[in-house]
Amino acid sequence: MSKQIYGRVALIGLGLIASSMFWAMKRAGLAGEVTGFARSAETRDTARKIGLCDRICDTAAEAVKGADLVVLCVPVGAMGAVAEDIAPFLKPGATVSDVGSVKRAVIDAVAPHIPEGVHFVPAHPLAGTEHSGPESGFAELYDNRWCLLVPVEGTDPEATARLRALWEGMGANVDEMDADHHDLVLAVTSHTPHLIAYTMVGVADDLRRVTDSEVIKYSAAGFRDFTRIAASDPTMWRDVFLTNKDATLEILGRFTEELFALQRAIRTGDGQQLHDYFTRTRAIRRGIIDAGQDTAAPNFGRQTASGEPAE
Amino acid sequence: MSKQIYGRVALIGLGLIASSMFWAMKRAGLAGEVTGFARSAETRDTARKIGLCDRICDTAAEAVKGADLVVLCVPVGAMGAVAEDIAPFLKPGATVSDVGSVKRAVIDAVAPHIPEGVHFVPAHPLAGTEHSGPESGFAELYDNRWCLLVPVEGTDPEATARLRALWEGMGANVDEMDADHHDLVLAVTSHTPHLIAYTMVGVADDLRRVTDSEVIKYSAAGFRDFTRIAASDPTMWRDVFLTNKDATLEILGRFTEELFALQRAIRTGDGQQLHDYFTRTRAIRRGIIDAGQDTAAPNFGRQTASGEPAE
Repeated sequence: MSKQIYGRVALIGLGLIASSMFWAMKRAGLAGEVTGFARSAETRDTARKIGLCDRICDTAAEAVKGADLVVLCVPVGAMGAVAEDIAPFLKPGATVSDVGSVKRAVIDAVAPHIPEGVHFVPAHPLAGTEHSGPESGFAELYDNRWCLLVPVEGTDPEATARLRALWEGMGANVDEMDADHHDLVLAVTSHTPHLIAYTMVGVADDLRRVTDSEVIKYSAAGFRDFTRIAASDPTMWRDVFLTNKDATLEILGRFTEELFALQRAIRTGDGQQLHDYFTRTRAIRRGIIDAGQDTAAPNFGRQTASGEPAE
Repeated sequence: MSKQIYGRVALIGLGLIASSMFWAMKRAGLAGEVTGFARSAETRDTARKIGLCDRICDTAAEAVKGADLVVLCVPVGAMGAVAEDIAPFLKPGATVSDVGSVKRAVIDAVAPHIPEGVHFVPAHPLAGTEHSGPESGFAELYDNRWCLLVPVEGTDPEATARLRALWEGMGANVDEMDADHHDLVLAVTSHTPHLIAYTMVGVADDLRRVTDSEVIKYSAAGFRDFTRIAASDPTMWRDVFLTNKDATLEILGRFTEELFALQRAIRTGDGQQLHDYFTRTRAIRRGIIDAGQDTAAPNFGRQTASGEPAE
């Protein structure tokens, strides 16, 4: 059932999120024409080679001309500059959105450049893989994942409703949230966990008495899951931590407090405290499966080396 | 190609690891008869119902009688008591092994009970899922995963070679390692990551301004991976931390040191340090995929909600 929502959509930045948006929009016929721009000529060439976007433009200005929706898919730290570049070329009545993992900083950087008569509806799809780049996208990335819309004050409800329809058409569930609350929730569910995973992987690499090859060979569940997280795009994550500093530091503070309590329980041999704590954490996992955010199949339904599902 | 290695194998404890061993042994025809015992009558009934083991016994003594191989598949903290219980009933020339995640503590607890003329070859298969219990096992769990053998001094090389053949027959790659080094390597690759994941999940649950339902709904990659780890068996993990205390505390110390350095980089806005760190951690992930410990498919090859592979 093809249901066009925007005549022309412009994707600025062509990584995992943008390329998956293109394939998801095509799958459902949500856009008449999709233009694309990436700063790197190599990325633009790759996009043309694999048929990513209907038209790849050599400038952002060209890409956004006549677009009904412009989606900024660049690292959070680059949003402001890109918004400034494209502002003079935006079509009156067009909507500008983004896919940044942090929302308050993006709003502060982008909103001042949005011209009169252009709508700005920030968004954040909660989906991704450890892969990045124009070739990493796939149409199913957003299926049954959440996309959070963070409309700024005074946003036209119709512009928000239209963007919601686009994300729902790409398979996502959509919620609206205030920017500051979004940044706190994501600090808990994504940003701090990523920093912790990066740290643990770094510790393993530093350790003298355990070789990298041992770490690599013997990393069963646990460390292996951390390395997947820690393989995510460094530039994107640098910007996330620099722009969601306060919430991340608050959650980190609570984390180290809790960690020290468990560390003390280990040191003093308090098995009851450890058992109680580990029992409590099981419930949340069940909830996540019930919420449809993951599969109940063992090992995430990971395929075994034999190619058979691990079930 | 059926290739029997032991005439009779006894599995003491019938959780994920033991039940997967049974199905893997059956798949390859590695054992003539497999007996099983679990302390809980409910577990024994379930095992009988689903056809787990050729014969379920109501006492450990009965299960080990005449067994050529006895594998202790109970939590690390229970190994010593179980070894003491079965010692009088072990067949001369039999081999006792285990599957504990910690090896020095298991050796200290079990070795004193092993009678003259019985071999003791500790082992640790590096495989698992977040599920537990007799119904959670499957034949492919050990395919292309590592199993570490930790023979104690003076062990008959033939007994070790025979156990190696069993694990290889169940699909695993086998290495031998010293007990103390094993415990350090696992503290890095598994034990500390698990404690960290448990902690982060607990923090999310404690946070007042973010509801559990928000944490659950919006946990994209990152936190979701942590919750899988943190859903593992509480008793098993309590025992791991109590019995691998020194190595875990050492790695935890290094971890917090590194974490504070990154926290400081965030606070001071040192984007270069963050970017350099995150870039370095990417390499280890590549190595793990090359080592065949994981799939390169996005999201671990997790199936999307639509049932299509996320590729």
